[in-house]
Amino acid sequence: VRRPETVGIIGLGLIGTSLGMALRQQDRSVRVVGMDVEASAVAVARARGAITESAGTFEAFAQAELVVIAVPPAAVVAVATAVAAVMKPGGVLTDVASTKAAIVQTLGRVLPPHVHYVGGHPMAGAEGQGAANADPTLFVGRPFVLTPTAQTNRDALATVSAFVEGLGMHPVVMTPIEHDAQVAQVSHLPYLVAVAVLNAASDEALAIGGPTLAAFARIADSPAALWTQIAHANRTAIVHAVGAFRRELEALERSLADGPALQAHLARASERSPLARSEP
Amino acid sequence: VRRPETVGIIGLGLIGTSLGMALRQQDRSVRVVGMDVEASAVAVARARGAITESAGTFEAFAQAELVVIAVPPAAVVAVATAVAAVMKPGGVLTDVASTKAAIVQTLGRVLPPHVHYVGGHPMAGAEGQGAANADPTLFVGRPFVLTPTAQTNRDALATVSAFVEGLGMHPVVMTPIEHDAQVAQVSHLPYLVAVAVLNAASDEALAIGGPTLAAFARIADSPAALWTQIAHANRTAIVHAVGAFRRELEALERSLADGPALQAHLARASERSPLARSEP
Repeated sequence: VRRPETVGIIGLGLIGTSLGMALRQQDRSVRVVGMDVEASAVAVARARGAITESAGTFEAFAQAELVVIAVPPAAVVAVATAVAAVMKPGGVLTDVASTKAAIVQTLGRVLPPHVHYVGGHPMAGAEGQGAANADPTLFVGRPFVLTPTAQTNRDALATVSAFVEGLGMHPVVMTPIEHDAQVAQVSHLPYLVAVAVLNAASDEALAIGGPTLAAFARIADSPAALWTQIAHANRTAIVHAVGAFRRELEALERSLADGPALQAHLARASERSPLARSEP
Repeated sequence: VRRPETVGIIGLGLIGTSLGMALRQQDRSVRVVGMDVEASAVAVARARGAITESAGTFEAFAQAELVVIAVPPAAVVAVATAVAAVMKPGGVLTDVASTKAAIVQTLGRVLPPHVHYVGGHPMAGAEGQGAANADPTLFVGRPFVLTPTAQTNRDALATVSAFVEGLGMHPVVMTPIEHDAQVAQVSHLPYLVAVAVLNAASDEALAIGGPTLAAFARIADSPAALWTQIAHANRTAIVHAVGAFRRELEALERSLADGPALQAHLARASERSPLARSEP
């Protein structure tokens, strides 16, 4: 696998800018061409060393061996289609959207055959948003989910896999459907549950909340417009995850009057919690 | 309000030991008599400066103007009854249990009239448990809920209120029923919801979880035996809070296919989140 000499990053928010910074810190010779609809995001990304040049049009990505699309999920297909039209033969395209099935299926149908797309999703995030909050250490030790299909070019998969390993992430390969089901369980459901807890509590109760509530409040205080796109796009998997969650909550509720049964549920979650604490 | 010269702390876990440390740091002349069923907890509390002497029997609290009961909730009534029997007339008793209605009602019936009990609950906590994890800064800026009834002695209420203010907490007065309803919403429900998320997710999904899941895992990884007591004791209020939560979650679920409605729910939680972020 040859490491790319020119990488494009389209979308210079928290993830795109953090990726550029991590990439440039690891390889000072790589060209990173960045683009964003907001001129201020481009300026911040450049000032923070995330990109070496900025692009006004998609033609600027003609020489990129790898382009990472880091725009909000609802814009991924349009941006991928536009940039693929100008990329050189054999160019590799990936993205960071947190839902995969619909995007992967559509791009499999509409992208030109000379460009190779591999669906991606870094399992990382932070409270702050935007280029100003970018952090090149965000990805260290985190999974990067890759969602190839039977049609995915194997060299392109190896390229993206090596790229994310170079940034300190560990690639995890699964199908787009598996990805969407799993992130519904461990990302979208917890977010929606935190939203429901905040919306269900009285103002007086919120005011006396301790550290547990504060953690829920930090989770619920995420950009509503972005999450509307994510939750809408992954609604089938979310409904499934909510169903499984509701059954667990009902089992807990039924066991409230039965100490040993209740304790067994609580102990099970405590025992399973290390599985979920892979964070650095 | 005279500040007590001798304070008793029964139960030298995370909260009891942290209280003793905070108290001794604020007033080097106060005597703090500590007691715990575990000799190792007493030794740690003494080594950390949380207590000035240890008690082998309840008689050691005969001279205390204020006794704080910081044992697990299911043991509060038995310990309060035992210590009240030896306390001097006018002695004040409080506790830190996270459910109040049942404890306050029972103690109102069984305590001798010469001892004045005021229900208490510091809205603070930490991940670690036990005297070894005690932290005197745990309480700074946090609410301390006081739950007097019509029978509560007003001087005793003033004594406990001044005591917790001296430790940097701000006293919040409400009825035991209000307390239980509010903590069900902002503490017990979020904990049970985190448990249900952990128990509903597949092992594979847990393994790719990001920071949101890690926060849920930290919350779910609490002592199951203690939480069994809490959830069982407060089950009526919890069932009520779960009902309100379930309605919010159902509203979210119904709006998944309707962008503007979904975004309105998500934005509302984000707007309410500062109410819940009173943490230092």
